[in-house]
Amino acid sequence: MRIVVLAGGVGGSRFLLGVRAWARAEEAAGRGRHELTAVINTGDDMWLTGLRITPDLDSVLYTLAGVNDTERGWGRAGETERVSAELDAWGVGWPWFTLGDLDLGAHIARSSWLRAGIPLHEVVARMSQRWELGVRLLPATNDEVETRVVTDSGELHFQEWWTRHRAALPARSFRHPGLESARPAPGVLDAIAAADVVLLAPSNPVVSIGPIVAIPGTREALATTTAPVIGVSPIIGGAVVRGMADACLTAIGVETDAAAVALHYGARHPAHGSAPGLLDGWLVDEVDAAGVAPLVATGIRTRAVPLWMRDLDTSAALAAEAIALV
Amino acid sequence: MRIVVLAGGVGGSRFLLGVRAWARAEEAAGRGRHELTAVINTGDDMWLTGLRITPDLDSVLYTLAGVNDTERGWGRAGETERVSAELDAWGVGWPWFTLGDLDLGAHIARSSWLRAGIPLHEVVARMSQRWELGVRLLPATNDEVETRVVTDSGELHFQEWWTRHRAALPARSFRHPGLESARPAPGVLDAIAAADVVLLAPSNPVVSIGPIVAIPGTREALATTTAPVIGVSPIIGGAVVRGMADACLTAIGVETDAAAVALHYGARHPAHGSAPGLLDGWLVDEVDAAGVAPLVATGIRTRAVPLWMRDLDTSAALAAEAIALV
Repeated sequence: MRIVVLAGGVGGSRFLLGVRAWARAEEAAGRGRHELTAVINTGDDMWLTGLRITPDLDSVLYTLAGVNDTERGWGRAGETERVSAELDAWGVGWPWFTLGDLDLGAHIARSSWLRAGIPLHEVVARMSQRWELGVRLLPATNDEVETRVVTDSGELHFQEWWTRHRAALPARSFRHPGLESARPAPGVLDAIAAADVVLLAPSNPVVSIGPIVAIPGTREALATTTAPVIGVSPIIGGAVVRGMADACLTAIGVETDAAAVALHYGARHPAHGSAPGLLDGWLVDEVDAAGVAPLVATGIRTRAVPLWMRDLDTSAALAAEAIALV
Repeated sequence: MRIVVLAGGVGGSRFLLGVRAWARAEEAAGRGRHELTAVINTGDDMWLTGLRITPDLDSVLYTLAGVNDTERGWGRAGETERVSAELDAWGVGWPWFTLGDLDLGAHIARSSWLRAGIPLHEVVARMSQRWELGVRLLPATNDEVETRVVTDSGELHFQEWWTRHRAALPARSFRHPGLESARPAPGVLDAIAAADVVLLAPSNPVVSIGPIVAIPGTREALATTTAPVIGVSPIIGGAVVRGMADACLTAIGVETDAAAVALHYGARHPAHGSAPGLLDGWLVDEVDAAGVAPLVATGIRTRAVPLWMRDLDTSAALAAEAIALV
């Protein structure tokens, strides 16, 4: 089975671990081989002190490689911050955005390759070779897309809003300079077209999944693929599972609610003449079973299952449920 | 007194410590104030994995700041190499050229400033503000000059020859792409013109002092300044004090000998019609007193003193002798 997962960083990583565990278990049981491709958000990427930082790609890479810091929830395990302390002393960079020493190795390598003219998808392929990931990683695009947050007190870079202000400044909207002229990275359209199923990880619908599916070409590929598109709700019982997606949803006028997010994504084949959206199916937590019942009428099949990815087993079970919805 | 010192990295740093200690002692004794300017070699500078590395400027900065590693002889004290180990794992950079973590902070800051269009002399001024150096540091030039080593088996970057091969491949000559079109950094010509004395540190005559004095404009300024130019021999008793200057001297056909190096620099006011050179005076070790006796006839005053810079006191005494030769 060819499985394509659209994913952001932390939540996407955990979901990918589950999909990979499910696929490995299937293979071990002799129930066929599975080819996993992850299309990763690049909307948070940025140049900082001359280095290209790709937070979501790094989260996914480190997590699949098993070198991520599971306690802190981001970055490399056993990380130190000696270089960052020096950057503070020199007065460069963002003191509130710490770059770990191990992490900096990746940033320096990536930046030097990009400056040498190697496109991002090849950089990602090169970095993926260091470990046995079991998932092919593709950036959503090789082109530089930025996320800016419009607030009442002015416009901020997404990271400033997210990391420095912990999303506490009310956001009015998000801007993505570069998005309209961005093209899907080589491999993305082919992967979606050839997929047996496309899964939307329970990542931030606004700043993680949003920028992936808004890239011209990608949305069309998702509309025309013969594969069903199944989303996993990032909202359980009206609250975000992790991160601050609620602040992002509020900014775009979407309620922090499993059904509301599904309606925001929309049905690929809407039951009544509304504009086609993304989803064939939508996986929600059992506490949201009643709330999503009306979705069926819009053309989105739903299924309520235990949605908390507490560990690898629950993540794999969730992946199995997503596949089962096909 | 306005004192200008032309210097390379490690030997230059130690000499500058001595000059500063001498100047501070003079001031403490009420014998006037001294203004110290160091013009530092940039011929070894390079871009490596997207970072601008300036080995001699760093050695001088760290040494004057008192944060240098005195045991190892280069880099920062308390240094670690976590990022470098990652760069090795990613397969970027030169595995034999280790970049320390603390050091990388400086490289990243410097590179981001240079990319923002800030010229090197301003970058150096900015970095100098972090500590109380007591010496104004100027790069020899803001322009990028490279040092390449011609050997029988091909041409190498200077660092590859020096650090990787420990100068063991016989060098045939040195090339300095960029040198002919380089201009002295702002401040260099004024400092030389206004100096009361110009000192040549006991640095490598070929790859440290050589690229400084070969910059068009700098050589003319050294020829026309009213200040005497006094050199300190990097050779004692036919051997280099530190480093591998002998391999460099051999490549350009100069004997590893205190008198031979003085003749290589040449007399500013030659006694007989030979082309004017750099030196008014030349400080050698006592073991070389007899060997340099013939120099007087060429127009170079000499003085034999204890030349080993064992510690701050001997370095300061050496500086005092150099000033006394004026």
